[in-house]
Amino acid sequence: MAKKNAFYAQSGGVTAVINASACGVIETARKHKDKIGKVYAGRNGIIGALTEELIDTTKESAKAIASLRYTPSGAFGSCRYKLKSLEANKREYERLIEIFKAHNIGYFFYNGGGDSADTCYKVSQLSEKLGYPVQAIHVPKTVDNDLPITDCCPGFGSVAKYIAVSTLEASFDVASMAKTSTKVFVVEVMGRHAGWIAAAGGLVEDHGIPVVILFPEIEFDQKKFLAKVDAMVKKHGYCSVVVSEGCHYPDGKFLAEQGTRDAFGHAQLGGAAPVVANMIKEAHGYKFHWAVADYLQRAARHIASKTDVDQAYALGKAAVELAIKGQNAVMPTIDRISDKPYKWKVGVAPLSKVANVEKFMPRDFITADGFGITAKCRNYLLPLIKGEDYPPYKDGLPQYVRLKNVAVPKKLAGFKI
Amino acid sequence: MAKKNAFYAQSGGVTAVINASACGVIETARKHKDKIGKVYAGRNGIIGALTEELIDTTKESAKAIASLRYTPSGAFGSCRYKLKSLEANKREYERLIEIFKAHNIGYFFYNGGGDSADTCYKVSQLSEKLGYPVQAIHVPKTVDNDLPITDCCPGFGSVAKYIAVSTLEASFDVASMAKTSTKVFVVEVMGRHAGWIAAAGGLVEDHGIPVVILFPEIEFDQKKFLAKVDAMVKKHGYCSVVVSEGCHYPDGKFLAEQGTRDAFGHAQLGGAAPVVANMIKEAHGYKFHWAVADYLQRAARHIASKTDVDQAYALGKAAVELAIKGQNAVMPTIDRISDKPYKWKVGVAPLSKVANVEKFMPRDFITADGFGITAKCRNYLLPLIKGEDYPPYKDGLPQYVRLKNVAVPKKLAGFKI
Repeated sequence: MAKKNAFYAQSGGVTAVINASACGVIETARKHKDKIGKVYAGRNGIIGALTEELIDTTKESAKAIASLRYTPSGAFGSCRYKLKSLEANKREYERLIEIFKAHNIGYFFYNGGGDSADTCYKVSQLSEKLGYPVQAIHVPKTVDNDLPITDCCPGFGSVAKYIAVSTLEASFDVASMAKTSTKVFVVEVMGRHAGWIAAAGGLVEDHGIPVVILFPEIEFDQKKFLAKVDAMVKKHGYCSVVVSEGCHYPDGKFLAEQGTRDAFGHAQLGGAAPVVANMIKEAHGYKFHWAVADYLQRAARHIASKTDVDQAYALGKAAVELAIKGQNAVMPTIDRISDKPYKWKVGVAPLSKVANVEKFMPRDFITADGFGITAKCRNYLLPLIKGEDYPPYKDGLPQYVRLKNVAVPKKLAGFKI
Repeated sequence: MAKKNAFYAQSGGVTAVINASACGVIETARKHKDKIGKVYAGRNGIIGALTEELIDTTKESAKAIASLRYTPSGAFGSCRYKLKSLEANKREYERLIEIFKAHNIGYFFYNGGGDSADTCYKVSQLSEKLGYPVQAIHVPKTVDNDLPITDCCPGFGSVAKYIAVSTLEASFDVASMAKTSTKVFVVEVMGRHAGWIAAAGGLVEDHGIPVVILFPEIEFDQKKFLAKVDAMVKKHGYCSVVVSEGCHYPDGKFLAEQGTRDAFGHAQLGGAAPVVANMIKEAHGYKFHWAVADYLQRAARHIASKTDVDQAYALGKAAVELAIKGQNAVMPTIDRISDKPYKWKVGVAPLSKVANVEKFMPRDFITADGFGITAKCRNYLLPLIKGEDYPPYKDGLPQYVRLKNVAVPKKLAGFKI
């Protein structure tokens, strides 16, 4: 059998550690040159495959590839581009196979969340049918931590650490000011459907911080929430609120959708944080501050979790090893062996069981009143934020790498996406 | 002469390193027990002096005091409480002197910005007049970097580092997503009058990031701004915008004041970031993300600048040494000796020249078009964010200290503020 090349692509929103997975894929492939040829990467994700914009990673030095381990974002570019069902969009799947055939690609490593797991699965099925079988391996990545089977997703641990550290620090700040000034601090975090990131804010309770969490899994009850905040402020003098962007009313309307209009009558896009903060001010008169972390949270490689970086790398490495072992349509997973001490190993899951399944916070991870996390949740989260893994600095700033991203010469005609 | 005690208070918005100054004050006073008695701290700042809520710092272990060096926020509590002029509010100044007399306090260390420098100066003048002379030393602190004479203010370097690092990371993120998704990232930073913090965002240009800065010193010109952003996106595929909370129109109206109303007709408080982001979307259709860093930036001890921490400590130490040398109504300053290599020493400034003077960005620190920083500004900023000074971690979170804050028994009757 002729040695095949590999194709690697990053999908969806990037994270602080997705490049650590890329690093794991490329370094491991380079160690197995007898089995795997070149690793090509998709420029801007799967779109790069469709348009034949492939990047030749062999043009990058070992040092540059090693630097991916501590560089946030997607080094080859990512995209939000979901391939439709096979029936609706067979043309694109066939194009992928054509590209793979033209560039002698026998391995497809797709680094993303639920949607890309689905695409990965379909590519594996179709390539078989079309007589050019490709081993498709999904490398999990999502800050939302919402993939099934794997105990956690690379990307999540670092956001969780960022939110826990930031909430702790801002809460110390509010505590200092509360006597005459700010009494409530509200921070908005990512997580449209699943409240894992918001839950991380709850870890500051161990440091004596009064905190109220608003999960997307719990329908927002304004009266109960305002009473809770008031009780916290009366007891502690201040409190912090961590609100998930996905927090919504019983009718499904997000808190952020307030139907606000500017002076010209245009609808205003706002965050959930200012809405919650103003709500508290109106009900109780407490002075507030609010923050929206947005990209800062998922890009914050400077405060990445060492556990997360190690796992991101390990899953990239495992993907290549699974490919070499002849596996197909699978995803390497993090399997938790124990909480204390935290032990984990790499497992493997069939993509048929990963695609299109979303993992929410279990109800017993959330306190009975819906505003906090339980000991069970704490035991789950704590190992995931453990350890620091600082990038190197020069002149005050991290030395993140930019790759050369040299294009592979095209072999096929153009393709309209 | 009987040995006098000292009084230390934190004033105004706290920072990531104000406790490092407290650490410098207390550790240095402890080394000079022959000259200075106990260090009392004001619970919640100057209010603690007025209400006789003094904290006995001698009850804290050496380890606890040493931990202040890496703990953000104000360990004794701060307050936003400005004493009015002597004429308007002689009663409060007299109360301060009474308290100092009752507790044998001969040294007043006031750690704050412009307002507290002014208070400090007045206390020194009045105490003389009232026949109980107190040596009043101001320890500079402000994230805004707007105090005169001193080359920079403790607190600023760490916020500057946080904003530079965060803008760099988020910009890497946007660059990855720009092909099919987010093209513009807007981050709002502190600085109501002075654009020093916003300027720090400009440091990412050295890392190849296209960035547009909106300073409070430059009147907002919407047309010019939108053209600039469009040109950046057309050239680079994406861009980042750093907007100061103090950015305003020529008529003085802040960008954040958009007269927005919610569904009930209530005025909505918003940030400048969503306003700027929506403006770009409407003009050019670019998909955006926005963040408001708020307290996260000034509390971010986890990414503090080593230069800043060292200087905060040095000025606390210097304040005590100046007191011992018999100085009064002064403020220790950072004097820059050279940029490259960066060298600085501690100087001293008379409070009469510090009080009520605000230091803005010089025009030649801002590019001609008003949207960037010059090489001169870069040379000024770079040394201030240099070096990392990580706090210790346990189980994934920084081990910030909480003091016991034991009360000093009261000796006087109550006082209404």
